[in-house]
Amino acid sequence: MHPIEHLQAKIAASLSNLPIYREPAGLYEPISYTLQQGGKRIRPLLTLIATQMFGGNPDKALPAATAIEIFHNFTLLHDDIIDQAPLRRGRDTVYKKWNINTAILSGDTMFAVAYGQLAGSDPQQLPQLMQVFTKTAIEVCEGQQYDIDFENSGDVTIDAYLNMIRLKTAVLLAASLKIGALIGGAAHQDAEAIYRFGENMGIAFQLQDDLLDAFGDEAVFGKKTGGDIIANKKTYLYLKALECSSPENASALRKWFCTRDSEPQVKIAAVLDLFNKAGVKQHAENLIQDYIKEAMSHLDAIRLVEKARAPLLELLSGMLKRNH
Amino acid sequence: MHPIEHLQAKIAASLSNLPIYREPAGLYEPISYTLQQGGKRIRPLLTLIATQMFGGNPDKALPAATAIEIFHNFTLLHDDIIDQAPLRRGRDTVYKKWNINTAILSGDTMFAVAYGQLAGSDPQQLPQLMQVFTKTAIEVCEGQQYDIDFENSGDVTIDAYLNMIRLKTAVLLAASLKIGALIGGAAHQDAEAIYRFGENMGIAFQLQDDLLDAFGDEAVFGKKTGGDIIANKKTYLYLKALECSSPENASALRKWFCTRDSEPQVKIAAVLDLFNKAGVKQHAENLIQDYIKEAMSHLDAIRLVEKARAPLLELLSGMLKRNH
Repeated sequence: MHPIEHLQAKIAASLSNLPIYREPAGLYEPISYTLQQGGKRIRPLLTLIATQMFGGNPDKALPAATAIEIFHNFTLLHDDIIDQAPLRRGRDTVYKKWNINTAILSGDTMFAVAYGQLAGSDPQQLPQLMQVFTKTAIEVCEGQQYDIDFENSGDVTIDAYLNMIRLKTAVLLAASLKIGALIGGAAHQDAEAIYRFGENMGIAFQLQDDLLDAFGDEAVFGKKTGGDIIANKKTYLYLKALECSSPENASALRKWFCTRDSEPQVKIAAVLDLFNKAGVKQHAENLIQDYIKEAMSHLDAIRLVEKARAPLLELLSGMLKRNH
Repeated sequence: MHPIEHLQAKIAASLSNLPIYREPAGLYEPISYTLQQGGKRIRPLLTLIATQMFGGNPDKALPAATAIEIFHNFTLLHDDIIDQAPLRRGRDTVYKKWNINTAILSGDTMFAVAYGQLAGSDPQQLPQLMQVFTKTAIEVCEGQQYDIDFENSGDVTIDAYLNMIRLKTAVLLAASLKIGALIGGAAHQDAEAIYRFGENMGIAFQLQDDLLDAFGDEAVFGKKTGGDIIANKKTYLYLKALECSSPENASALRKWFCTRDSEPQVKIAAVLDLFNKAGVKQHAENLIQDYIKEAMSHLDAIRLVEKARAPLLELLSGMLKRNH
């Protein structure tokens, strides 16, 4: 078995052994439905890989890795209510399949179950892991709140947007690595460095997702493009296009992002045309490269043999490859 | 200052020093709004009192006590969405004053903030405290789910109802005491005994609330009676009345608990008449006394000087006095 598959199997086993197969069914069925949906388990993989990188046994990091995966899925469950998203990984979201109350309460339970898993970590390390985990959980909520705020604001700066995706997406990837590193015995400064690596990589991934959503090859991307445009999502592409467009084009773009009832393909084509005129694809690609470069500089600051970094870089390049 | 007021002041100070006065305001304002609503802070008081009972310094229990109070308020915030409750302690509920999404996300953040406070406990004790806290949080969610399930079920047994209020209400009071006792240095069996004390007392309090809602003196009770009857809440009184009534009266009672559009005062009077014919007030009072007796037997099993128990019994008798 490939080393990453080996770690994935550990995560899958840990998730199947959770104390969530019990009564009341109305509470626990949505939880097992959510956790059995699969996904690539990127975050817990990052944790186990980081533990290994610093010479630790990944089994020691399994409780924390499991906690992170449950937490991540809990946030998706509540976000789907907030975003009124009907589908997740091709299946009905919990609030659609059951109802909002179930999605709230099952989500709350998952959050508690996540902490319950974390508590299975080495008692000596628990206070420190709790601190990182809790700070991150709060930041993810802050990121989601900024995302909501930005939906209703006509005045979002690019810096504010980048900070929002940092909080909503990147810090959890960063914390997954840092928690793994701490469990693996990393020195404080190395744990910080791998956090910064993950944070910058996380922003790069989100920018790439924004880019793919607009300019991706549907066959490679695996889903329809233009979703963010239809939903009037003020991504980096939109904000940068406003900045780089002529007043007329900026005004046309603003107008498109206020409509909800236009023909989707017409709107997508018109917005992409305005994006192209503003040259935002190139801007986004440059910014992504900047974040990746910054990420790598933090990784390079950690004294590790090349071999120790290989699984991490392999996993991440798999994620970046979707772009090309 | 009275000893209990002294502890209340510590709790108030701890709640005002939380890291919740910051951006984004859309996330944190509902949290400070919720936590500043006051209330008697029964649960954190129980924690601090239990720590003192076993000779500990209540300051050592303040992080855990604060965590419990935040957790309790978080559950109220989400419960108010689920129950569509417009008012809480005489003020708009968060989901009414803001919206459902805000109430979900601010609640999630409070849950994380609660764990963040708990993490400030003695590192040596943290794993054990986490275990009690998390188990309790999960049980409270289970209790709320059973409550939802029972709303839509025609077939609730008295045992199932008692288990529901145990989970939804009593275990948090019990855990508040147990956590305080553990921090105070209680032996394992004493921590268990005080848990059982709190659990039985908690069920007694909830049964008393049910009783007051139907038969209370509005001037003493401080709110209108009959609320549970109007809401068709299948409390102990209803379930016991079904058990003790003639087939005709039971059928009349069932019918009343299916209607939503009858004149409130007419419905309340008719249901109270059926409750009286079934003698449920006396049944409830007996059951409450049974739970209090059971609670006291667990407290008596703990070897404590009379003086050490005094603040606990004073606080609880204040809660019970509302009945008389």
